Amino acid sequence: MPDHEVVILRIGHRPERDQRVTTHVGLTARALGAKGMYLAASDKGVAESIADVVDRWGGNFFCEDNVKWRSCIKNWKAEGGIVVHLTMYGLNLPDIIGEIRPHARILVIVGAEKVPGEIYGLADYNVAVTSQPHSEISSLALFLDHLASGTGFAHEFPGAKIRIIPSKAGKQTEGL
Amino acid sequence: MPDHEVVILRIGHRPERDQRVTTHVGLTARALGAKGMYLAASDKGVAESIADVVDRWGGNFFCEDNVKWRSCIKNWKAEGGIVVHLTMYGLNLPDIIGEIRPHARILVIVGAEKVPGEIYGLADYNVAVTSQPHSEISSLALFLDHLASGTGFAHEFPGAKIRIIPSKAGKQTEGL
Repeated sequence: MPDHEVVILRIGHRPERDQRVTTHVGLTARALGAKGMYLAASDKGVAESIADVVDRWGGNFFCEDNVKWRSCIKNWKAEGGIVVHLTMYGLNLPDIIGEIRPHARILVIVGAEKVPGEIYGLADYNVAVTSQPHSEISSLALFLDHLASGTGFAHEFPGAKIRIIPSKAGKQTEGL
Repeated sequence: MPDHEVVILRIGHRPERDQRVTTHVGLTARALGAKGMYLAASDKGVAESIADVVDRWGGNFFCEDNVKWRSCIKNWKAEGGIVVHLTMYGLNLPDIIGEIRPHARILVIVGAEKVPGEIYGLADYNVAVTSQPHSEISSLALFLDHLASGTGFAHEFPGAKIRIIPSKAGKQTEGL
């Protein structure tokens, strides 16, 4: 089992409407151990929100906006990585995750409502997280957790200024 | 292992700002087999979006707005259910899910940014899905999937008008 290097490619992002959802996509990716997110749109707000979290909570998660999705996919493949596109129309996650897991470098495409048809052909795997409409945020979370065989919750975030002490009730944190 | 009856209680929802995120919370709950969502706010838009999905994609998921959260929690407990509050400050999901799983009826509280302090005391379990900031949508998805031991993807949705045929590439649906 390789130690996965996962990066998100967020496409179809509309700067006003999708800022909050795309920020949740990025933070979910970070919390579950992905390395960063390429954003195929210009939106400093998303990059700044994520940078603020990284500054306080640690780790090296990157967020780069203004990325061209075609060249991003091409470069990723040229360097030997595979491309997974999360879509409700794809093959069901439990049926395909075993084929994906042996690959070390995975670019995960997370679309907003409309995705160019070309993406389906460019992806090595089109993966459905249930074949029901729900949320790209939950699809990404479930994909990353299943990729890590349900053990993706114990990542280290070096350089954090704050850390939570898990509690039965209430809020406990410690400064670092 | 009981067949879980899970209902969401969404609190802290602000009608303008949170409509999209709360809709994603509801749709995620539905896709992963929950029975419905109580919304502790007045927001017809969320209820209508979810009703539209249920109408097309099937099942009996309900969404009820204008719910009073204190009486909702009280009634749920009076009927023998337990209350789980998802919060980054809680005990880590993998450490506590084994204690939660034997319970058949579970009310899952999903808060927006600010949650009344009282909730931490009212909940039977405060559960963290990683102790990192990310998204209530991904927290709910991961909680429900772990509750079902990673097998929560095969729910039936009777009465659907449309169904997806999982495909390697492209979009295939069938009308029913």
